[in-house]
Amino acid sequence: MTRSELINQIKQKKSFLCVGLDTDINKIPRFLLDYEDPIFEFNKRIIEATQDLCVAYKPNIAFYESRGIKGWESLRKTWEILPKECLSIADAKRGDIGNTANMYAQAFFDPKLSGLGFDSITVAPYMGEDSVSPFLEFKGKWAIVLALTSNPGGLDFQTIKDKDGLMLFEQVIKKVNTWGNPENLMYVVGATRGEAFSVIRKHAPDHFLLVPGVGAQGGDLAEVCRYGMNTDCGLLVNATRSIIYASDGKDFADAARREAIKLQKEMKEELEKGHVI
Amino acid sequence: MTRSELINQIKQKKSFLCVGLDTDINKIPRFLLDYEDPIFEFNKRIIEATQDLCVAYKPNIAFYESRGIKGWESLRKTWEILPKECLSIADAKRGDIGNTANMYAQAFFDPKLSGLGFDSITVAPYMGEDSVSPFLEFKGKWAIVLALTSNPGGLDFQTIKDKDGLMLFEQVIKKVNTWGNPENLMYVVGATRGEAFSVIRKHAPDHFLLVPGVGAQGGDLAEVCRYGMNTDCGLLVNATRSIIYASDGKDFADAARREAIKLQKEMKEELEKGHVI
Repeated sequence: MTRSELINQIKQKKSFLCVGLDTDINKIPRFLLDYEDPIFEFNKRIIEATQDLCVAYKPNIAFYESRGIKGWESLRKTWEILPKECLSIADAKRGDIGNTANMYAQAFFDPKLSGLGFDSITVAPYMGEDSVSPFLEFKGKWAIVLALTSNPGGLDFQTIKDKDGLMLFEQVIKKVNTWGNPENLMYVVGATRGEAFSVIRKHAPDHFLLVPGVGAQGGDLAEVCRYGMNTDCGLLVNATRSIIYASDGKDFADAARREAIKLQKEMKEELEKGHVI
Repeated sequence: MTRSELINQIKQKKSFLCVGLDTDINKIPRFLLDYEDPIFEFNKRIIEATQDLCVAYKPNIAFYESRGIKGWESLRKTWEILPKECLSIADAKRGDIGNTANMYAQAFFDPKLSGLGFDSITVAPYMGEDSVSPFLEFKGKWAIVLALTSNPGGLDFQTIKDKDGLMLFEQVIKKVNTWGNPENLMYVVGATRGEAFSVIRKHAPDHFLLVPGVGAQGGDLAEVCRYGMNTDCGLLVNATRSIIYASDGKDFADAARREAIKLQKEMKEELEKGHVI
């Protein structure tokens, strides 16, 4: 998916919502356990209930991998039914040396080899250029590199300052910028880091930012938009638990839709305020 | 596997060799392609040919993941036949927020859930404490945290100095040390970083170090031992390509054994020199 296709989606749906599919067999409604593949069944209904309201879906790979081969089968089937107009994000946070990073790129980008063909993948920057570049070589695909994450441990190393006062996440953005461009590169910035968005935008004014942490993790949408939105929107805000686990009853898909509508309405207002639409 | 079991293995086999199982369908001998699962068949013969010479096996997960579900099946079957006296290392370089890191721990440590029960996993530190700690909570299991890696990109961020002159990999070791101990925590240090081993040993005198980069990547075993060996050995030196791809003919397992013997002999000398045996 190209950058302009993504922007068109955002303007058309008046939304920059990404729905996280961190589907946990212990949290989904009990009645689904009677189905052959409860995880897939859950995802299918969540997707049907939200696809007109969001522009991206992001399965976190750990939730599938933890179930071994049957988890990978649920992931493959889920990928197959993801709406083609939405950006599909494999939230895998992979990172390894060059020849190995290329294997990971095949794992998530090349359906002929792996059965999966996501549009994008999240990537950890610690191992440097040869661990990121292989993902940038696939036409029409995106690497979404961790910059400043939403979790408590995000402050352990990412905000360490060098002798010039530049924090690690700033150095990551400055250097990774030279390996790709806003057409194939995004950054992960946690919604819990509101004030940091203005720092991020100094280094990456045009790049899309994938923003987890709204909802269950306590991030504030208005603050994210105030400091992070650019003229193309430039934000994909992810919500997971507040949407997919809005109800644990038979009405879970309807409840998910209600939560997605709430967020989409807020997003429409922010897009208008930012003169994107 | 406990630390003392590992040390016993090293003394008994007079070796601290780890064999990497980065098994690439395009590099294995052609005749194996006639088997139902060529990757597993290759691994089985490599393991049979080397298990008395090494103390650990390290499949790099990317090589399996890139083949989708059939790759995971090859990995599961390989894990099943790994000799129980050897440390099994899932080279996965995972790293995600707390609840997700726990899912990754289940994926590689809990065979009832995932089909896999490795002794240890490599972990990326960028996301901080809650991304590492879940792996340390499994009894008898190890987290092997990336510190200073062997690849060219290893120098992009890992050697950035803070205002006190401490490099990022040093800060990682100092902080991660407080989350675990030498019984459940190791560090990855590339063999190509010879002189850095003395810096590492200042911060982590007792921890085992997993050392890739000997062989194809050009690292020097004697230099690694000179600066990195401690009284318990404290090193697991990995070789992959130089062993498993020593021949691409029918004799590949014999050729692998010959290369492993060469390394084991050098290692025996180093262990004697270091008064470990």
